Amino acid sequence: MHTTLVIGKKLLKMGWCLCMCRPSLSTFSSLLYSKTPSLPFPSTFLPSSSSTTPSIKSNLFSSFASSSAVATGTFTWEDVFRISQSAEEDNNSSYLHGYFHKVQLCNRDSGKQSEFLPFVIEGQTVGFIHSGFVEHFKSFSDVFIHIKDNSNGGSVSECVSLHPMLKTAEERTNAVAYVIKCLGEEHIPGIRNEFYPVVSSFGSRVLFSLERAAAPYFGIKAYGIHMNGYVEIDGQKHLWIGKRSNTKQTYPGMLDHLVAGGLPHGIDCKENVAKECEEEAGIPRSISSRAKPVGAVSYMDIDGYRYKRDVLFCYDLKLPENFVPKNEDGEVESFKLIPVRQVAEVIRKTQFFKANCSLVIIDFLFRHGYISPENVGYLDLLRSLRIGDCS
Amino acid sequence: MHTTLVIGKKLLKMGWCLCMCRPSLSTFSSLLYSKTPSLPFPSTFLPSSSSTTPSIKSNLFSSFASSSAVATGTFTWEDVFRISQSAEEDNNSSYLHGYFHKVQLCNRDSGKQSEFLPFVIEGQTVGFIHSGFVEHFKSFSDVFIHIKDNSNGGSVSECVSLHPMLKTAEERTNAVAYVIKCLGEEHIPGIRNEFYPVVSSFGSRVLFSLERAAAPYFGIKAYGIHMNGYVEIDGQKHLWIGKRSNTKQTYPGMLDHLVAGGLPHGIDCKENVAKECEEEAGIPRSISSRAKPVGAVSYMDIDGYRYKRDVLFCYDLKLPENFVPKNEDGEVESFKLIPVRQVAEVIRKTQFFKANCSLVIIDFLFRHGYISPENVGYLDLLRSLRIGDCS
Repeated sequence: MHTTLVIGKKLLKMGWCLCMCRPSLSTFSSLLYSKTPSLPFPSTFLPSSSSTTPSIKSNLFSSFASSSAVATGTFTWEDVFRISQSAEEDNNSSYLHGYFHKVQLCNRDSGKQSEFLPFVIEGQTVGFIHSGFVEHFKSFSDVFIHIKDNSNGGSVSECVSLHPMLKTAEERTNAVAYVIKCLGEEHIPGIRNEFYPVVSSFGSRVLFSLERAAAPYFGIKAYGIHMNGYVEIDGQKHLWIGKRSNTKQTYPGMLDHLVAGGLPHGIDCKENVAKECEEEAGIPRSISSRAKPVGAVSYMDIDGYRYKRDVLFCYDLKLPENFVPKNEDGEVESFKLIPVRQVAEVIRKTQFFKANCSLVIIDFLFRHGYISPENVGYLDLLRSLRIGDCS
Repeated sequence: MHTTLVIGKKLLKMGWCLCMCRPSLSTFSSLLYSKTPSLPFPSTFLPSSSSTTPSIKSNLFSSFASSSAVATGTFTWEDVFRISQSAEEDNNSSYLHGYFHKVQLCNRDSGKQSEFLPFVIEGQTVGFIHSGFVEHFKSFSDVFIHIKDNSNGGSVSECVSLHPMLKTAEERTNAVAYVIKCLGEEHIPGIRNEFYPVVSSFGSRVLFSLERAAAPYFGIKAYGIHMNGYVEIDGQKHLWIGKRSNTKQTYPGMLDHLVAGGLPHGIDCKENVAKECEEEAGIPRSISSRAKPVGAVSYMDIDGYRYKRDVLFCYDLKLPENFVPKNEDGEVESFKLIPVRQVAEVIRKTQFFKANCSLVIIDFLFRHGYISPENVGYLDLLRSLRIGDCS
């Protein structure tokens, strides 16, 4: 471990551990900003500040309001089809606005990055923790340490790290799990006992493993797979779209990809696609093995103490015309096969889709020729699909 | 025009025009660096400094040397096929190295950005000009002005602009064309009388038009279209590859896309694809109209006084099995249809392809599932396809 622990004068004042962490401190402030570039939206696409933090429930229809759906906070497949069929010409200069808005819903409050402290392990920034959330760690000074460095002239650099006594991944995993258990549902709701690897970049050494529900509170990068399942009928592509169960804990009743899932510790993307295909849509391995990796999208979303830094590996699976998906784990209410152009209208005009699905579908629209350089803002929208640290 | 012209004391010393340009100077140094991020290659993929500026002619085979081809600086289709058939397993950790190397050939000498001055018009940075090349402008102080600002503490910010008397796009186009004509082939070889629009970003107002051959000397962003023409035979994709004529001025004898071309002033991407399809491969509009825009790649390449900042809009065209391309403008020696996996091997192992074609083909490999997240460096390679300012 590169960290040098030096107990400073402010220790008592802070009430918990203060130390110097030279190798990382020289770089972490630059990482904080350089790794999270400013949003590339042209100013004309920037919605007002109120619309950057919308309540998903109260604002499901972004520009095509249906009073009944808004009132109940729910929508039906009938709503979806009605809106999907109101296609507009794609040659007006504001055609991409609806897509930009969906990208922004995944990238809220980038201006609040300064409220977060880098979470540094072995000299590598693996996450970002809100300074308010860091307060909870004061009682756990044998696990978390708060590091301040004022050796760089007047400015003070701060970061959070794990206690240097925690040397192995297993020791760190257990110690952090203990803290999370103590903090409980009040501070970290939705604990699932499912673990994500903590890494500085995809494929690098796993420094420890962290409860999935805690990932946004530690701002670690979380990786997942999202699969577009499509069918070609008479040369026209259709996407299989799921509607999440109304009893699902997260995003109940919303539209979703045919198959998607987080990438837990110890499983690679290919195997995860096959597993999720079986569980979520009843797709046998003989078919799911044809799923093609087609790139990735990333976003960085700040919501209070939560900092989501997700990288989603995108897959396309061309399904046989006669294949009908069947959910095996009760998390999907039903599936519908919808022409891609109509799915595009739903993305543009509503917030029916779980926000990150919109990004992956917009990526699909780019790759399959549904958005063209003649659309004003083409390159800005393309770049915006990887605003987050895609590494 | 936002520029405020203030003749300073150093005017006589400089021998030409010196002025203050407040709106741009506050931002141009940050643009220079923030818009041209550091290369995202992991350190393990960085070749030694000698290999970052290879002589294409002397090093056509990067890892699969054929003494005869290297000796003559040429290669035949036979060489291509021999190398293409030596496929390797894609599961070793260095599998992507050959691709990283090709990306680097398009992004040379990023460390020399500081040798270039921003070229600023109406407060917008539209290019970068080498400080050595700027010397040529001393005799043309009624066209080019050299701006220094030392009002920001000790540091001096510099940029080049056009004389504020040149107010319209037409006036600027004519004045700059006159300078280029005076400088002649000695300083700007390959003048074609073909004009590129000068813009700060794609689709924004055209500030003037510039001779195509001069684009890299002014570091303006140049836009182009590159089309992957492919055929599916028994479920296996094949790419049509062209071999450039040995008499072509640029990159003679090298491998190329089926269709590619710069985007001149006054023509949109869609129309340019149709035009180049006809001219370069004899593809009728009835077929080329099916070409799909699928994204973009970008690079920034420094070579002496030249700073190429290219954005290439990528297209895929699925061709009928029985279609055979026919070059109409004498710029292509011949075409061959090659299985995608074999094209990938040629990219990985040789420098047979015109460098920027490699980027567009690597993008094709990503989108069509030939590179997977299990390949070490997947996300780094994906990001590296848009190192340049893709706007």
